[in-house]
Amino acid sequence: MKRLEDIVSLCKRRGFIFQGSEVYGGMAGTWDYGPLGDILKRKLMNEWWNYFVEKRDDIYGIDSAILMNPKTWEASGHTTTFSDPLVECKECKSRFRADKIADGISESVTTEEFLKTHTKCPVCGKENWGPIRKFNMMFSTRVGAVLPDDDAEMTKNTTTYLRPETAQGIFSNYKNIIDTIYPDIPFGIAQQGKAFRNEISPRDFILRDRECTQMEIEYFIKPETWEEEFEKIRLLQHDFLENIIKLNPEDITEYEVPENDRAHYSKRTIDFMFNYPNGEEELMGLAYRTDFDLRNIEKASGKSMEYRDKKTGDNFVPHIIEPSIGVERLFLAVLSTAYTEDEINGEKRIVLKLPENLAPYRFCVSPLLKNKPELVEKAKEVYEKLREKYVNVTWDDSGNIGKRYRKQDEIGTFECVVIDFDTLEDNTVTIRNRDTTKQTRVKIEEL
Amino acid sequence: MKRLEDIVSLCKRRGFIFQGSEVYGGMAGTWDYGPLGDILKRKLMNEWWNYFVEKRDDIYGIDSAILMNPKTWEASGHTTTFSDPLVECKECKSRFRADKIADGISESVTTEEFLKTHTKCPVCGKENWGPIRKFNMMFSTRVGAVLPDDDAEMTKNTTTYLRPETAQGIFSNYKNIIDTIYPDIPFGIAQQGKAFRNEISPRDFILRDRECTQMEIEYFIKPETWEEEFEKIRLLQHDFLENIIKLNPEDITEYEVPENDRAHYSKRTIDFMFNYPNGEEELMGLAYRTDFDLRNIEKASGKSMEYRDKKTGDNFVPHIIEPSIGVERLFLAVLSTAYTEDEINGEKRIVLKLPENLAPYRFCVSPLLKNKPELVEKAKEVYEKLREKYVNVTWDDSGNIGKRYRKQDEIGTFECVVIDFDTLEDNTVTIRNRDTTKQTRVKIEEL
Repeated sequence: MKRLEDIVSLCKRRGFIFQGSEVYGGMAGTWDYGPLGDILKRKLMNEWWNYFVEKRDDIYGIDSAILMNPKTWEASGHTTTFSDPLVECKECKSRFRADKIADGISESVTTEEFLKTHTKCPVCGKENWGPIRKFNMMFSTRVGAVLPDDDAEMTKNTTTYLRPETAQGIFSNYKNIIDTIYPDIPFGIAQQGKAFRNEISPRDFILRDRECTQMEIEYFIKPETWEEEFEKIRLLQHDFLENIIKLNPEDITEYEVPENDRAHYSKRTIDFMFNYPNGEEELMGLAYRTDFDLRNIEKASGKSMEYRDKKTGDNFVPHIIEPSIGVERLFLAVLSTAYTEDEINGEKRIVLKLPENLAPYRFCVSPLLKNKPELVEKAKEVYEKLREKYVNVTWDDSGNIGKRYRKQDEIGTFECVVIDFDTLEDNTVTIRNRDTTKQTRVKIEEL
Repeated sequence: MKRLEDIVSLCKRRGFIFQGSEVYGGMAGTWDYGPLGDILKRKLMNEWWNYFVEKRDDIYGIDSAILMNPKTWEASGHTTTFSDPLVECKECKSRFRADKIADGISESVTTEEFLKTHTKCPVCGKENWGPIRKFNMMFSTRVGAVLPDDDAEMTKNTTTYLRPETAQGIFSNYKNIIDTIYPDIPFGIAQQGKAFRNEISPRDFILRDRECTQMEIEYFIKPETWEEEFEKIRLLQHDFLENIIKLNPEDITEYEVPENDRAHYSKRTIDFMFNYPNGEEELMGLAYRTDFDLRNIEKASGKSMEYRDKKTGDNFVPHIIEPSIGVERLFLAVLSTAYTEDEINGEKRIVLKLPENLAPYRFCVSPLLKNKPELVEKAKEVYEKLREKYVNVTWDDSGNIGKRYRKQDEIGTFECVVIDFDTLEDNTVTIRNRDTTKQTRVKIEEL
């Protein structure tokens, strides 16, 4: 049985993930990736980019700004609809997301419906609630030469938001990309970058944070091809998650979002659910968004979003299929899959069984004994040689060899290479496999 | 003579960089990287990371949150001192940075000093100024369940800022990193990530933007070794800029910041100036920050920032040397260096002479004629073969071969491979070099 708190504890203990601003008392909903977490996060982002952008002919990458013209969020509907139901306890002034503290109500709950649930305040236990208010989850900020005593008009004119999704940066660049590189349709535009949501109550470790890294593709298609393109992209997601990232297929469930739960413009949405230690949660989403986004831009900007088909000469506004995933959710899915407690020769151990392409370190090189200079010297030589071939090789001469193995197991190091006295004689080393703990003897040049 | 406006124009025309939110009328001080700009930006970031982190034993990467506990910015001094002198014209209400519209005054100009310069408003031409006010350049936002009618106290408690530098994310994680991986001193912690400055008047293309990507290292040392470590790190910067990124050494000038212009805690600062088309500008900075930052954290958090020397057992607060560079400044330095207008057989051309490791595309593959299926088929075969070996290979069958060369020259494609009728006979192709335009004939398998 894998427990989330054990994974959180390992993350902190080994330098994968720390609470954001921890030294200053923390900042709820933010997380900092330590040396090992940074390596793993980069590997996940690089694998995704390589699979969906670099290896393909039809998907182009961009990198757009986090701060966007506020018209973006009017056109997309975020300023009016991107909100949660906030309720305040009149007794202790605590604030909550109404649909998270009461059972059987939805995000669109009314004050009346909420009061009927007779929910008590989770903090003070009283039942004395204010009205439900729509709390917009976008972080707002003011751009330009603004001063604290500016009037309301000036405040309004200078207010914008931290992007709540990277997708709008893609839509707003669609026209520029058509005009400069004019790709054949279908084609995609991909982006990896930060997005922000002011969650009322961030929770579940990195799953519901206020700052996340999204990886999104907007795939532009001819409207009449949507069903076949949707199917192709759906299969690609499985291939990536299962064959590149090596998640277990049985942990992934497709939830076909029913019509009345979908956004009104979406004709089909699939949530890819993952079996996390604390229950099933969304890992990624796949949505057919029709021409909703490009039509919104047309209305807001007055510019045509039409694409001219190279073969037929037809002009039309492309439709869009969007696969969207958060790196944090993928990160936790990978860690949950890898986290294993087993027993080796009667001794319990924790091991991260990460696939070879994701292990933070491919090799750890050690001298059997730290106080034998000839072993240390030879081990350094092997270490340097391996570093010429592999990017991620680490060195460990702390404690005794057993402790080192335990430590390397916990951080998921794929193989440990140990230099001992035999090495000095015959140039062979011991290689220890992380998952089986089996040791084999190989020649240095065969590494 | 290279002109900034020609480079800006190329960037837009070829999909390197677009104005942020352009379709909505733009967002001053933000820029979006299109397909080619994204490739180049990634290459620059990857080269830096590989050189300073992956290839080294002593520097560790992290990835910390943009939103930090506001105590961070009190401790660092940013809430009080990170500001520009703002002045408002009482006639037309335009606002300016006082030290940018008047000659011979500094950032710390007083109202009196400014009025003495008898500067006229650049917009309306009048001379009727309000007082100079300190304008803090941090973007503020409010975190958590906050409502528009919250009182001042609540506003204060929930206000934080978009980080104006990535460095504070490193300092605040220093203790966690010591406690988890306990590296030998000297060691560095590196980070790449977004930082934000609310410039009053963003300008100079991507040089003075409101949102930039910083690459910073905080290098922790024994206090008594600062001079030798500073020198080592100074030389590393030159090696990276000149041998990896291939900037011309004669375009880089070290400006030794004199004592009275340095931050009070810095014992030595060097600004690396680059000879941009619009004049000399800072490319990066190298500062010896003493123990100023860790001492600030000790004061603000009450926690000890001491490091225990493994060999001597001594406890001390490390000193810090910080090399800091913005990707945008490096990007423009690279483009300025590469941008060339020359003449080939009497015809003018624009060519980006990017080094091989930075060229967005290593190869462009083309059939000589687009309407000959046998050429197209063979070219596709070569294209697929090259893509197995290289990440960045592009395909171009637009226009005629001359036009393709011009286009590929403008985007810096390193070599063009052309498949013609001879290819079908003898399996050789033409390779055209971008810089010399020289064409050679090679066998496909030798590519």
